[in-house]
Amino acid sequence: MDKKPKVALVMGSDSDFNTLKPCIKMLKYFDIECDVNVISAHRTPDLAAEFAKSAKDRGIDLIIAAAGKAAHLPGVLAAFTTLPVIGVPIKSSTLDGLDSLLSIVQMPKGIPVATVAIDGSDNAAILAAQILQLAYPYLGEKLSQFKAQMAKEVQEKNAKIKEEASLL
Amino acid sequence: MDKKPKVALVMGSDSDFNTLKPCIKMLKYFDIECDVNVISAHRTPDLAAEFAKSAKDRGIDLIIAAAGKAAHLPGVLAAFTTLPVIGVPIKSSTLDGLDSLLSIVQMPKGIPVATVAIDGSDNAAILAAQILQLAYPYLGEKLSQFKAQMAKEVQEKNAKIKEEASLL
Amino acid sequence: MDKKPKVALVMGSDSDFNTLKPCIKMLKYFDIECDVNVISAHRTPDLAAEFAKSAKDRGIDLIIAAAGKAAHLPGVLAAFTTLPVIGVPIKSSTLDGLDSLLSIVQMPKGIPVATVAIDGSDNAAILAAQILQLAYPYLGEKLSQFKAQMAKEVQEKNAKIKEEASLL
Amino acid sequence: MDKKPKVALVMGSDSDFNTLKPCIKMLKYFDIECDVNVISAHRTPDLAAEFAKSAKDRGIDLIIAAAGKAAHLPGVLAAFTTLPVIGVPIKSSTLDGLDSLLSIVQMPKGIPVATVAIDGSDNAAILAAQILQLAYPYLGEKLSQFKAQMAKEVQEKNAKIKEEASLL
Amino acid sequence: MDKKPKVALVMGSDSDFNTLKPCIKMLKYFDIECDVNVISAHRTPDLAAEFAKSAKDRGIDLIIAAAGKAAHLPGVLAAFTTLPVIGVPIKSSTLDGLDSLLSIVQMPKGIPVATVAIDGSDNAAILAAQILQLAYPYLGEKLSQFKAQMAKEVQEKNAKIKEEASLL
Amino acid sequence: MDKKPKVALVMGSDSDFNTLKPCIKMLKYFDIECDVNVISAHRTPDLAAEFAKSAKDRGIDLIIAAAGKAAHLPGVLAAFTTLPVIGVPIKSSTLDGLDSLLSIVQMPKGIPVATVAIDGSDNAAILAAQILQLAYPYLGEKLSQFKAQMAKEVQEKNAKIKEEASLL
Amino acid sequence: MDKKPKVALVMGSDSDFNTLKPCIKMLKYFDIECDVNVISAHRTPDLAAEFAKSAKDRGIDLIIAAAGKAAHLPGVLAAFTTLPVIGVPIKSSTLDGLDSLLSIVQMPKGIPVATVAIDGSDNAAILAAQILQLAYPYLGEKLSQFKAQMAKEVQEKNAKIKEEASLL
Amino acid sequence: MDKKPKVALVMGSDSDFNTLKPCIKMLKYFDIECDVNVISAHRTPDLAAEFAKSAKDRGIDLIIAAAGKAAHLPGVLAAFTTLPVIGVPIKSSTLDGLDSLLSIVQMPKGIPVATVAIDGSDNAAILAAQILQLAYPYLGEKLSQFKAQMAKEVQEKNAKIKEEASLL
Repeated sequence: MDKKPKVALVMGSDSDFNTLKPCIKMLKYFDIECDVNVISAHRTPDLAAEFAKSAKDRGIDLIIAAAGKAAHLPGVLAAFTTLPVIGVPIKSSTLDGLDSLLSIVQMPKGIPVATVAIDGSDNAAILAAQILQLAYPYLGEKLSQFKAQMAKEVQEKNAKIKEEASLL
Repeated sequence: MDKKPKVALVMGSDSDFNTLKPCIKMLKYFDIECDVNVISAHRTPDLAAEFAKSAKDRGIDLIIAAAGKAAHLPGVLAAFTTLPVIGVPIKSSTLDGLDSLLSIVQMPKGIPVATVAIDGSDNAAILAAQILQLAYPYLGEKLSQFKAQMAKEVQEKNAKIKEEASLL
Repeated sequence: MDKKPKVALVMGSDSDFNTLKPCIKMLKYFDIECDVNVISAHRTPDLAAEFAKSAKDRGIDLIIAAAGKAAHLPGVLAAFTTLPVIGVPIKSSTLDGLDSLLSIVQMPKGIPVATVAIDGSDNAAILAAQILQLAYPYLGEKLSQFKAQMAKEVQEKNAKIKEEASLL
Repeated sequence: MDKKPKVALVMGSDSDFNTLKPCIKMLKYFDIECDVNVISAHRTPDLAAEFAKSAKDRGIDLIIAAAGKAAHLPGVLAAFTTLPVIGVPIKSSTLDGLDSLLSIVQMPKGIPVATVAIDGSDNAAILAAQILQLAYPYLGEKLSQFKAQMAKEVQEKNAKIKEEASLL
Repeated sequence: MDKKPKVALVMGSDSDFNTLKPCIKMLKYFDIECDVNVISAHRTPDLAAEFAKSAKDRGIDLIIAAAGKAAHLPGVLAAFTTLPVIGVPIKSSTLDGLDSLLSIVQMPKGIPVATVAIDGSDNAAILAAQILQLAYPYLGEKLSQFKAQMAKEVQEKNAKIKEEASLL
Repeated sequence: MDKKPKVALVMGSDSDFNTLKPCIKMLKYFDIECDVNVISAHRTPDLAAEFAKSAKDRGIDLIIAAAGKAAHLPGVLAAFTTLPVIGVPIKSSTLDGLDSLLSIVQMPKGIPVATVAIDGSDNAAILAAQILQLAYPYLGEKLSQFKAQMAKEVQEKNAKIKEEASLL
Repeated sequence: MDKKPKVALVMGSDSDFNTLKPCIKMLKYFDIECDVNVISAHRTPDLAAEFAKSAKDRGIDLIIAAAGKAAHLPGVLAAFTTLPVIGVPIKSSTLDGLDSLLSIVQMPKGIPVATVAIDGSDNAAILAAQILQLAYPYLGEKLSQFKAQMAKEVQEKNAKIKEEASLL
Repeated sequence: MDKKPKVALVMGSDSDFNTLKPCIKMLKYFDIECDVNVISAHRTPDLAAEFAKSAKDRGIDLIIAAAGKAAHLPGVLAAFTTLPVIGVPIKSSTLDGLDSLLSIVQMPKGIPVATVAIDGSDNAAILAAQILQLAYPYLGEKLSQFKAQMAKEVQEKNAKIKEEASLL
């Protein structure tokens, strides 16, 4: 396989964009092409259906969908495709993200959505990389490096906090 | 207007049927024609879209949609029509109906769903009658009778309970 | 029918006014006459009863009621009228709107309230327009335009975000 | 004061009766007269208003009101009287009583309801006795006896469980 | 009865004081003497027990107790007295007041606490006045005036909001 | 790629087995090899670590992990591997599955778990198939057939319910 | 130290006894003496205070306290002693244990309660053993054996489930 | 026993440090040696396992572990040691600490975590002192002094608030 891995990132509202920037940057880190879209399951339902139906043929390997409140977008896209769909619940101004989480994760039998933490858009990208390594072996290596890097950073913080704590 | 009022009742799964029987009977009480359907927003998304898009032209005045868990059905139908959509959250085996309630009621700006109580399918029918009376005046009279009948039943129960309580 | 559609908007406290401005503006957009009121189900219960009882005769087609905390107002108005009542749960300083939502949506058999999202006052107006189109056909056209306009706005935001994302 | 203390017990539905029997029995224990009623805040709102308004003049000292789901009854009665109102949230088939609790306890400024535990109807009666002792001094004595009796029962159970535990 | 009504107000922490000021002012409005205390059920348990045990003999008619988090104070005081205890759940930095509410309202059989809304300290004072009117008849009159005053204020706000709304 | 897709299914307790049978059967339907294991993150932590570390080298493509209560298993396995981990929250005797859901889905930055619905073990298998199709193209075809089959079943149920409803 | 470790187990109601039997048996397994008591923080508050105050002098090393609903018992005992108190939230007929959990765990600054899972009485005993090993070294050995035994049981169940799964 | 008591404090992220400062200071107050660490159960799982396994041999008497979101750290450490582990749930940006609380407290049979209040890090230190007094008798005395000091502070605040209240 020569082509680069390609992910579609779909947000239900442009107000979700800031929460999704860590996802976009993380996809870049993993050298995964990312097609960014604002598509509303409710305000542009035909576009959403069309987008999901044609995603596979357009070379999309996987969809990441983020939405808040009654967050139907990930489930609606999943209904129209057999590609894996990762759902990112977005916290909005009421209920602290519980509504988005339940609306995304509690999908009925037959149409799963791979749900990550509320506002956890960076993890959506990492999960995407984990999934895509099955077809793009370079990602296996990159994920190991990433894991090692994270461990290193924790150890550096450990040293720093130990010092700060000794001064208390 | 000569035609009879006509409601479409859509459930996301045939397992919701028992919970919806009170709705169907209440619609009969109000002499409202009811087109009953099993359509899944996730397993038959094209049918759902098609059903909602053509509902108005098929003479449907209003849609009642019931679903459990990540209950997207009412919102998905509402996305494809300008008819009023009444949503009935169905309690499933986990989370006591909270997931369905939030997935139905917390709709984003632009696409409302008129949500009733969890498993409150009879109230969906009464709300439908209240709405439809705007175009079908006979329902105004029938709703007044229904209200009077309910009040009478409460008073009969009042008498009965007073007697039972006196025997405690 | 020559008269203009007429909605009564009732809030339980003047502190709800800001949250309801989008509702009032949306009703204006749809050319729906709106009678704005502060009536408390608890502090002015007689007024509330009287208001609801006489609403139909005063030419009100539909009531939108907004309240916070133990938000009884929509249910109390619904008890005294057969007009459809749309309930808007208002988020207050504790419990993130969950109390208002449950107090409004969980109405017992016989007296429904058409509940929209917490603080979702614009959707209350759109739902009102969807309901009123049954008797005021011009609203059907206006709702289609509104839906088209929303779709267009999403697409414009899509273009804008795609550009912003490419710069990340 | 020669008259006997008198409490009105109001339930929103006859299905609440079983949960309220411990309340009625406890009121008997305290020799408090109890007027038992089924009155719905939503299905018989005029009766509810009338009942609360006239309660004081009918010699009622205090109202105990029980309701489930969007449990408006205690708050609605409180709106029409200055008598103290004790609210008993009733657990119904969904949400485990949380909806009734929040609908009763989260009353807005000005109209309190003295809320007890979900399904805690016996405690409503004991709270009534505590309140009524202010005007009916015999209740002070009876409450002390009741407290002593409860303590004795706990101690008897202590002895019994100690024995059972020794056999494990 | 010549003496003035007397309430003990007990808070679990001095950080609750600001939330309780409306309670103190409302008690003043009703001309109810108020003994203000900081007593912790956990840090000064002996004082709490002693305080509750001797309250009746010290002429206290009723106790208002406020606490946050695992808010045991109202229940602990209620355990040591037969006076009515009103509980005010205080919202703290986590869980939005739900923990205090449940810790106060869910009292077991035998020891009720009359619970009001989270942070609803003014309502605790009004409830106290409603209870105390049984023994202090002047409060009945004052409560009626208060109710009338509240109604008047709502009507004034109604006029003001109607005007503001007309300018939107 | 000639080898068959291979999934490891890990449950935290043998009491989860019944809930996971639909997952195992669904994996069979998709012709995915399934290695079933009982490994506790807490009672056999070394085995869990070892299992996850060596999974990739043993030819495992993906891990499905199910657990109840403080459901750490999926996250713990994810910590020791870069393979994608699908988490299935199991409902236990308290809290209706909310504890397992939050313990699995709310993973911190760096270590995602692809969470499905509470007790949604069949969806875990379908999600696995969607992921594995990236490397095993036959699954793409099978997923399309599965989707078509589901749609057909909904339509059959639609016909059956329509008939039943007509008899009400 | 020659004496045997000694734990006081206190339950708020004899109805908690069944849930606590695994705790008593587990304490036996660890050869920890257990003094079983029914003491109510609310119905026998003086006994509770006395019990906690004298516990240390009576040779008690640690208290395990279990209670449901507004579960004050563990916190109340902790207020009167400096011994460590382990709290076991008991699930009652409403709210699925959430009320007991929050009432026990959310203790204010100064008076901690070591809280275990809802109905997790066996874990209370194991935690007791872990704590007591500090003074009773034989428990360190026994805890290691217990951990090894648990691991062995998981492995046996692993073998059994693997076989059962192969037959599906 | 001549050595000083020694506690390991482990946080899952350096962002938890501020919330843990009261814990560190409280341990100092009790003259308990504290080894402060940043170790992630997910990003440095091998370190976490190693740390817990060797803790006892390194002279650690007890572990305090703090984490947010899907807070696995306390449970993961507990899996690898028989030392008592105190868990501190940290509130993060969503769900108000409920996720951390449930992820820490709802541990399965066999591996308890002694959980304190959300963000209750000072109580973790006090609980540690209560536990450690079993082996370090000087702590018993110090805990009594601490309790007395707390009581004194409450009484001082009582005097201060009484004065402030008199000025309202």
